[in-house]
Amino acid sequence: MREARAKIAKFLGANPLELVFTSGGTEANNLALKGVFETQASRGSEKRNRYLISSVEHPSIKRTAEYLESRGAEVVVIPVNRRGEIDLAAYDAALNEDTALVSIMLANNETGNVFPIKELAARAHAKGALFHSDCVQALGKLELNLTDLGVDLATFSGHKFYSLKGAGILYTRRGVQLESLIHGGGQERHRRGGTENTLAIAALASMCELKDDVARHAETMRELRDHLEKRIFSEITHVRVTGADSPRVPNTSSLIVPGVDGEILLMNLDLKGFAVSTGAACSSGSPEPSPVLLAMGLSRREAQSSLRVGLGWSTTREEVDRFVDTLVGVVSHLRSIMPNDVKSGQFKGEPCEV
Amino acid sequence: MREARAKIAKFLGANPLELVFTSGGTEANNLALKGVFETQASRGSEKRNRYLISSVEHPSIKRTAEYLESRGAEVVVIPVNRRGEIDLAAYDAALNEDTALVSIMLANNETGNVFPIKELAARAHAKGALFHSDCVQALGKLELNLTDLGVDLATFSGHKFYSLKGAGILYTRRGVQLESLIHGGGQERHRRGGTENTLAIAALASMCELKDDVARHAETMRELRDHLEKRIFSEITHVRVTGADSPRVPNTSSLIVPGVDGEILLMNLDLKGFAVSTGAACSSGSPEPSPVLLAMGLSRREAQSSLRVGLGWSTTREEVDRFVDTLVGVVSHLRSIMPNDVKSGQFKGEPCEV
Repeated sequence: MREARAKIAKFLGANPLELVFTSGGTEANNLALKGVFETQASRGSEKRNRYLISSVEHPSIKRTAEYLESRGAEVVVIPVNRRGEIDLAAYDAALNEDTALVSIMLANNETGNVFPIKELAARAHAKGALFHSDCVQALGKLELNLTDLGVDLATFSGHKFYSLKGAGILYTRRGVQLESLIHGGGQERHRRGGTENTLAIAALASMCELKDDVARHAETMRELRDHLEKRIFSEITHVRVTGADSPRVPNTSSLIVPGVDGEILLMNLDLKGFAVSTGAACSSGSPEPSPVLLAMGLSRREAQSSLRVGLGWSTTREEVDRFVDTLVGVVSHLRSIMPNDVKSGQFKGEPCEV
Repeated sequence: MREARAKIAKFLGANPLELVFTSGGTEANNLALKGVFETQASRGSEKRNRYLISSVEHPSIKRTAEYLESRGAEVVVIPVNRRGEIDLAAYDAALNEDTALVSIMLANNETGNVFPIKELAARAHAKGALFHSDCVQALGKLELNLTDLGVDLATFSGHKFYSLKGAGILYTRRGVQLESLIHGGGQERHRRGGTENTLAIAALASMCELKDDVARHAETMRELRDHLEKRIFSEITHVRVTGADSPRVPNTSSLIVPGVDGEILLMNLDLKGFAVSTGAACSSGSPEPSPVLLAMGLSRREAQSSLRVGLGWSTTREEVDRFVDTLVGVVSHLRSIMPNDVKSGQFKGEPCEV
């Protein structure tokens, strides 16, 4: 445990004692929000009661914020536009001296869009608020240094970085007080009870030994992702990429393929051996269009025609080319059997409803 | 997941949908207590506010009950005597129409004492209270059927049953309402957010295929444990076994070896290749005597001379004999170098302070 903690801390640019191991990203996100809320609750009249989140947070932030709201907290949701940019004017207007915590993700899990966390955290600190960032999507895709980033709390998940399910981290900057979410034995310096998942933690630490490889893999993924999008643009008409003009992690491409239902597209690709998604991985199988894409202002029809493609460290150019070849064929087939009225409404390449 | 859930449910005598997978026993215990507390909180004037626990619960129950107390709950701790029996008169006196939940473990993790859960649950139900039992120690040691046991909530942990760290269960009887502890995606039918630890859950399910072997292993462990205690009684003077006259799980022996410091004994045995404990596994290394033994009325000196021996499915008679041989030698040596005044106070075989 000590060795693993040191390796992971070095990877993240943190002090080993600043890491609280959890069962995963969802628990770490819950701990961040509820931990701050409960700590505030014990402050009586000094209590701050406002919580800011973005409109495109993961359900583990959104549902937890709703829970805080049901317990009396004031939650303000900051909009993100269809370019994937957070509304800075709304952010500044919402930040006040009553703000306990801001929680904004480093990179969105569906579009890959990266938010200006360092700047957002500095503005929160100027108002005396704490800043949490869900960094689950960033591991292995961006070079990361938590001390530079200037956040107070940050969430990571082992299985999003090629290790096992069952280990997450809440980085808790020295000096930040947090009520425990799970009480028990004195594990994690009394910050999180329960026997540590040593196997999953050791697996994550092993991955963290590859710190020097992250930049190289990120560059390779970016080249492949750009190649993928370039080929798709030239071979499938009317395709758009959500958030493409804003900073993105290098492995993600959130496509809109007008005239095609995303779920049907997914099933066809699945049959041919390609695992893609129409929204968040954790809501696979849900018939509802992605709440993230809707929050960004896409129409229901656009969101229902979306497809999320993610590359990994081991993805090859040959695989990307085979994927595009397959996608071209499947889209062409699906479009050919679509009723004409659907086609005509979809092929304009513009939102049908706003 | 579906297969694993079915296998585990069959093992426990439950319906598959009654199982909520958590990261471990500690989280499941937290979910039980806090889930009921939060659900009560939403009931307004109908709210029940009293929580009963035994004095020998695991820290994940005790610390969680203290947390509920800090949030306004009334917590009543029911005493357990040095024979390992719960005080039924105190239990009946404390149970009232304001009682929301009783949480009493099936088997104690240090002494192995088994409490009469079926009877205790029936009495709680007569007052309209819910009943939770921490059954972590019981897996693989007792034949178990949750429907027969009559509890509303029950906690289990995979790694206490020869599988991996990172999977626990809160059995939640159909119809029992529980606010989530961890909010997020819709996993576990919206009862526990977070990606499931499929590996650890599958490992636990594999163990549960061995349902028919539990009785046989339990009988073997009981014979070996009795053999161990018989040899120790005849070869080491003044030894006592805590809770030996009350029902116990078959693999546990909580020894008091007067005249010897338990921690020093442990270190000596460790050097010779035997892993034993002086108290709960999760407080190993703590210099404080076991709170469980103190709560049962043992003196500090008795508790400091205690040693917990646990057998497993694979323990052999040869290993038990080698252990006793080693213990006899180590105790004899340690007693020979003890100052005389300590010896004289200890060798009476009676509590020195009460």
